[in-house]
Amino acid sequence: MALIVQKYGGTSVGTTERIKCVATRVAKWQAQGHQVVVVVSAMSGETNRLIGLAKEIQSSPDARELDVIASTGEQVTIGLLSLALKAIGRKAVSYTGGQVRVLTDSAFSKARILSIDDHNIRRDLADGNIVVVAGFQGVDEAGSITTLGRGGSDTSAVAIAAALKADECQIYTDVDGVYTTDPRIVPEARRLTTVTFEEMLEMASLGSKVLQIRSVEFAGKYKVKLRVLSSFLDEGDGTLITFEDDRHMEQPIISGIAFNRDEAKLTVHGVPDRPGIAYQILGPVAEANIDIDMIIQNVGHDGMTDFSFTVGRGDYDRAKAILDQVQSRVGAREIAGDKTIAKVSVVGVGMRSHVGIASKMFRTLAEESINIKMISTSEIKISVVIDEKYLELAVRVLHKAFELDQVPA
Amino acid sequence: MALIVQKYGGTSVGTTERIKCVATRVAKWQAQGHQVVVVVSAMSGETNRLIGLAKEIQSSPDARELDVIASTGEQVTIGLLSLALKAIGRKAVSYTGGQVRVLTDSAFSKARILSIDDHNIRRDLADGNIVVVAGFQGVDEAGSITTLGRGGSDTSAVAIAAALKADECQIYTDVDGVYTTDPRIVPEARRLTTVTFEEMLEMASLGSKVLQIRSVEFAGKYKVKLRVLSSFLDEGDGTLITFEDDRHMEQPIISGIAFNRDEAKLTVHGVPDRPGIAYQILGPVAEANIDIDMIIQNVGHDGMTDFSFTVGRGDYDRAKAILDQVQSRVGAREIAGDKTIAKVSVVGVGMRSHVGIASKMFRTLAEESINIKMISTSEIKISVVIDEKYLELAVRVLHKAFELDQVPA
Repeated sequence: MALIVQKYGGTSVGTTERIKCVATRVAKWQAQGHQVVVVVSAMSGETNRLIGLAKEIQSSPDARELDVIASTGEQVTIGLLSLALKAIGRKAVSYTGGQVRVLTDSAFSKARILSIDDHNIRRDLADGNIVVVAGFQGVDEAGSITTLGRGGSDTSAVAIAAALKADECQIYTDVDGVYTTDPRIVPEARRLTTVTFEEMLEMASLGSKVLQIRSVEFAGKYKVKLRVLSSFLDEGDGTLITFEDDRHMEQPIISGIAFNRDEAKLTVHGVPDRPGIAYQILGPVAEANIDIDMIIQNVGHDGMTDFSFTVGRGDYDRAKAILDQVQSRVGAREIAGDKTIAKVSVVGVGMRSHVGIASKMFRTLAEESINIKMISTSEIKISVVIDEKYLELAVRVLHKAFELDQVPA
Repeated sequence: MALIVQKYGGTSVGTTERIKCVATRVAKWQAQGHQVVVVVSAMSGETNRLIGLAKEIQSSPDARELDVIASTGEQVTIGLLSLALKAIGRKAVSYTGGQVRVLTDSAFSKARILSIDDHNIRRDLADGNIVVVAGFQGVDEAGSITTLGRGGSDTSAVAIAAALKADECQIYTDVDGVYTTDPRIVPEARRLTTVTFEEMLEMASLGSKVLQIRSVEFAGKYKVKLRVLSSFLDEGDGTLITFEDDRHMEQPIISGIAFNRDEAKLTVHGVPDRPGIAYQILGPVAEANIDIDMIIQNVGHDGMTDFSFTVGRGDYDRAKAILDQVQSRVGAREIAGDKTIAKVSVVGVGMRSHVGIASKMFRTLAEESINIKMISTSEIKISVVIDEKYLELAVRVLHKAFELDQVPA
């Protein structure tokens, strides 16, 4: 017998019919002898409807009151799922975040979880109940309702699994696991049986939206065994997100090819190559709350250098305007920009113990005449910036070159 | 400066535009120097939508979970109204029933209020806030969400007014007060400036649906000054519901003509006139949870008698079926029924000190050849059952006979 926390997102509970399907699935797990806690999101579309009502009244709604309104979406789902479980003869009891209680700070609409009281849940599980908890929400010290921000239900599930020391936290989504790359680009993409937390974090930060990055960090920190599964398929073990030492010795070196189209590149040409220049250029950009991703400073010649960095495409215009102001102050020759780039990354913990991954990546791209504009590396990933038009080609050839279409021996 | 509790029903907060109007009205009261607590219902239609979702899953939904779902309606409204107040520059803070806390028993979907903690509300009022509270809901000792049943928001408002010892509890509805009778039937019907609690209770129980009867009882018990006002008109003092001794010496004898079409009559003909016969007939009806209103047992002849009573029209068929079974057991000759009756009542505390009201009522009806089928009286009301087709005529002639169209001197 295991203690399992399952999380179902908005699409999985989007209609009363789907809620009945979730109840059937949950009941099956309990019938196998497991104790089950279910964390749910609002029915799909409901959070947007509620926020829309609030915005009809106040264009930038007060965050405390917005949380009061938005949190009702999950509250409706917990009631409905509990009814569906009772309708098929299961004992069930629902809890809002405040009833659990999930204590958070008072940063309304982006609250952080401080602690979770597991008393009620444990008692109800011991009584044979399936416990249904509203995701995305908590309550602060003063008793005000808080929400964790978009996608916060994943974080709720992981935090509750951590508090209960659950055997596994299962995230049910509309995909059946984590893939070697996006199957819409590479039909041969393969579902990974396991992936490490670090790889998952790299993939999430690179635009692979299976799990909220915050929930992955949380699971890694509290050693929660996390599994991604499909809520629409009845079979399959999904993808287990593991700690490195849990895995077999023989690992594939590379786990996947991630990519991100949401990038734009800015270059400051001809700046004096002197100490502090990076700060003079990037300081004003950071102060405007623009996230900077890759940064490259060329080797200087004749006391001058070039300086390039990437930002999210939505921030490009603002970043460009800031650089235009900075230009004269730092004595730069020219500000250039490019919104038609993309980032492709090879991710895998096996890189740590294997050499030659980077050169294999670069050679593969060169063979297709794909020019590399920027490079950055971490311990377990190599990212390159290329022309956006070559993105699909690059992903396909890299997927093949690293033999990701082959089931590992 | 006064402390005022205002309650706005579902129609008054039915759209975001209407919620903005309510905010303007509330702000005006505060600007006049009053402290204001606002109790709100769910947006009109919302409670039915939520109950509809629950019934899609379970035809008779579990009451605890139904309350979890239904209570979100009011929760959305408190958030929206607080936003609307902030949008016009007022300080506002919202509370769910549980946050106040409104402690109730655990009779889900028909809970009774046990106590109200006024600490948070008083602190926020002292800080210059308008306090917005979700009506209809509370929380039990175990922390589960409860609801007070349909129309419970009136009761919430009165209970909060009682707990705060508010100077007045104002119920805003779609009518601008309590009338001498239904203006749709008698265009000369007049809004009453005041009406006593006892009269209000009689009128409510007779089908005049301005206020929930439970809230009136509650206000009477805790001496809460209750006023009914229109949420759509900007002027008018509505109707103040008073204690008898608050009123001037010179009272109108009769305050209003109430009526109820939702009645049906059943008669058991030819039963033995012996002790216990009433219980033998009415016991099985009461056990089936059918409310019995008027009861008449004729004077017996030759050891036999007739027995008549009225029930709600919706219960007629069930009651008739029960009597058909009872018939042979009690040896009755015949069971007769009539679904085309109506009840008309003359209500007024002045009846206590004035004679001749009943005879004036009977004479007035006789002059129009309206036959009286049953009569019942209380200290402050006389009710008669007549053919439904004469209802409007009876109401009009009684309204005129008792000079209710005249403003009292």
